[in-house]
Amino acid sequence: MKAPGNLYIALIHYPVYNKNGQVIASAVSNLDLHDISRVAKTYGVRAFYIVTPLEDQRELVERIISHWIEGVGARYNPDRSEALRLIRIAVSLDAVRDEIALDCAVSPVTVVTDAKPQPRNTGYPALREMLKGEHPHLLLFGTGWGLTQEFVDGADYALTPIMGNTGYNHLSVRSAAAIVLDRLLGDTMD
Amino acid sequence: MKAPGNLYIALIHYPVYNKNGQVIASAVSNLDLHDISRVAKTYGVRAFYIVTPLEDQRELVERIISHWIEGVGARYNPDRSEALRLIRIAVSLDAVRDEIALDCAVSPVTVVTDAKPQPRNTGYPALREMLKGEHPHLLLFGTGWGLTQEFVDGADYALTPIMGNTGYNHLSVRSAAAIVLDRLLGDTMD
Repeated sequence: MKAPGNLYIALIHYPVYNKNGQVIASAVSNLDLHDISRVAKTYGVRAFYIVTPLEDQRELVERIISHWIEGVGARYNPDRSEALRLIRIAVSLDAVRDEIALDCAVSPVTVVTDAKPQPRNTGYPALREMLKGEHPHLLLFGTGWGLTQEFVDGADYALTPIMGNTGYNHLSVRSAAAIVLDRLLGDTMD
Repeated sequence: MKAPGNLYIALIHYPVYNKNGQVIASAVSNLDLHDISRVAKTYGVRAFYIVTPLEDQRELVERIISHWIEGVGARYNPDRSEALRLIRIAVSLDAVRDEIALDCAVSPVTVVTDAKPQPRNTGYPALREMLKGEHPHLLLFGTGWGLTQEFVDGADYALTPIMGNTGYNHLSVRSAAAIVLDRLLGDTMD
């Protein structure tokens, strides 16, 4: 039942594609914060970064978190507060990497998730093994219509896309994050 | 890659507990419809029932679905439309059972999911095996603060709760549904 404790995750709002394949900064979704922080807390993730270059979006995240951590939300639902405490806000991937390097005295290995197959995909059992070591890993999730190819290519590893048992693969990032963390960190099924 | 095709799921809005342990009918959440229908479509679920005795809530679900299936939403995002077509609306569990019996000429086996451990929990590999047969199964998810104990006791089986690798188990029903369907129907990980 012990969490590896060396996994960080980040939800990237830039650079991502919009519906028309243009590179944009997507809007932060309140529900992404709630759902993904609860999953992160369940699986022992060390911190959950919200990454956006837009200052008003970072302020919005601050306001949401402080409502649940310090405000009436904390009294109303302490479990929710415990999950949202995992959230950290960052302006870019570089800033996240720097902060983790301060935590761990070493830069994290970056692993990108994407719904499109990549030629160099790493499978779940392989990454699960890597997470048993001590080196910090940073798992990157995209928003909008997905992370740009350049961003994907810049990561150290690219995780195999989640395929169900049909050809359909249009999961929300919330559902994808839940499934990926369960596959990587969930207890052996019983 | 072939879906078993004999699994139905239902999201139950009554009878569930509220925060204070009272039995209520919870409000339908737009995002539950979207996230869970996309997961259901990914894993080849046969239909996704929204179950509520409240007429105004059933009408709300109708309006949301028709926007995405027939309205501007269908043109804007056909993938979303394909997922939401899986949704059926029902007034009660009995009504769901009757409708599936019409589909399949036999009543479904009911399997309840719950965050609280039950003395008679069935594990994921056992249910995964059961789903390989031809008999229809109906997987039940609760909203609010969870399904009533009486409702849980009335199901044929109760699935083991999802535990991560920490003591925290407060997932949203959206995250829980994603993880459960991946454990039951996901391809062998690679």
